[in-house]
Amino acid sequence: MIDIDAVERALDYRFNHRDLLCLALSHRSNMGLPNNQRLEYLGDSIIGFFISQSLYRLFPQLNEGDLTAMRARLVRNTTLASLARELRLDKYLIMASGELKNNGRNRVSALADSFEAVAGAIYLDGGIESVNQFLDGMYRTLLKDIQPRGLKDSKTRLQERLQKDDSLLPVYRVLGQEGEAHSLTFEVSCSVPGIKRAFIAHGRSRKAAEQAAAERVLSALDEQECDD
Amino acid sequence: MIDIDAVERALDYRFNHRDLLCLALSHRSNMGLPNNQRLEYLGDSIIGFFISQSLYRLFPQLNEGDLTAMRARLVRNTTLASLARELRLDKYLIMASGELKNNGRNRVSALADSFEAVAGAIYLDGGIESVNQFLDGMYRTLLKDIQPRGLKDSKTRLQERLQKDDSLLPVYRVLGQEGEAHSLTFEVSCSVPGIKRAFIAHGRSRKAAEQAAAERVLSALDEQECDD
Repeated sequence: MIDIDAVERALDYRFNHRDLLCLALSHRSNMGLPNNQRLEYLGDSIIGFFISQSLYRLFPQLNEGDLTAMRARLVRNTTLASLARELRLDKYLIMASGELKNNGRNRVSALADSFEAVAGAIYLDGGIESVNQFLDGMYRTLLKDIQPRGLKDSKTRLQERLQKDDSLLPVYRVLGQEGEAHSLTFEVSCSVPGIKRAFIAHGRSRKAAEQAAAERVLSALDEQECDD
Repeated sequence: MIDIDAVERALDYRFNHRDLLCLALSHRSNMGLPNNQRLEYLGDSIIGFFISQSLYRLFPQLNEGDLTAMRARLVRNTTLASLARELRLDKYLIMASGELKNNGRNRVSALADSFEAVAGAIYLDGGIESVNQFLDGMYRTLLKDIQPRGLKDSKTRLQERLQKDDSLLPVYRVLGQEGEAHSLTFEVSCSVPGIKRAFIAHGRSRKAAEQAAAERVLSALDEQECDD
């Protein structure tokens, strides 16, 4: 059904157990059949680890807050979905017909899940070395181009973006703080006119928590656009 | 200053670069000095990966929702802090004097951070094999004893716990839902009388999201008790 050889060429990896690759491409819309959600759960943690250690080594001068913000950008669904598109996984996804008619192959969540599941499958099939090599290749350009600087100003980026859309300004609210003077954690919400849900984030300072909340809104806006 | 030999015996690991171990034990209250927060960021992702793949292999019949819930219990701060106590890391934490006076050695967040940072340090020092071996030893009992069953009923456990405390019942509210019929995600908040913040969680069904939100409240209540 799927042209396994073509997928393997795109991945630059040859499976010992090709059923793992098929499973990784099985969308959860296939009711009653095995799907890729367990592999996605596994792949998610592998990618998190890969990106964490890559950024740790690439940016020895950055603190954990900046590293965490950069990691969030590299592992969010829109990024994973674009990597899936590079591999043309959209072409190979096994989906229920209703989902297909619904433009399912272009859905960000389906693409992101398939990328994570493929990473999980390569790990199970070939071990940590194989999956690291795969992720090295996929993330090479993103890791080369990523800049910590821009990240510091998620609030500004959010504000500019909302003004472009003729919306009003985001509203930040401190929901709470925990801990003693030296180890405070702030919880902040960011609400945006026109979006019903509030975005909540944590940080070691009010400002850091606000930046993180703004970053979450930006990610959600990105996903919205890609899903449209 | 620290008895490195004693710590290494507790960890059952001998460092090639002992400065990594010292860094892992340096609390962020040491203003202006290097601290363990970057190592904690790294260790967090290593532990997440270790637990994810352990649960994946241990419970081949469980879906990703149950696996995610179990992982949350194994990597939450109270669990990490108790592992740190087993290693007696509280004795060896390097802290500012103000933090020490403030009972800093017993703070859950400080202990959890130190455990994660030690895992990060072992990874940098000895590679993935060494840190997996370390985590295998530390998590052996927890992984042997963990039961998926109990997890399904976080709402019940929360309700029982609140009634014991003479509080009122938790209130669940659906904040929103996203996606099409086959790939819905629900966002639910859980509010508890007496706790100012709301706990928000996501799930593939309303019920799953409510269970996840209840689990978050339980974790927060655990941490509160340990910090008291």
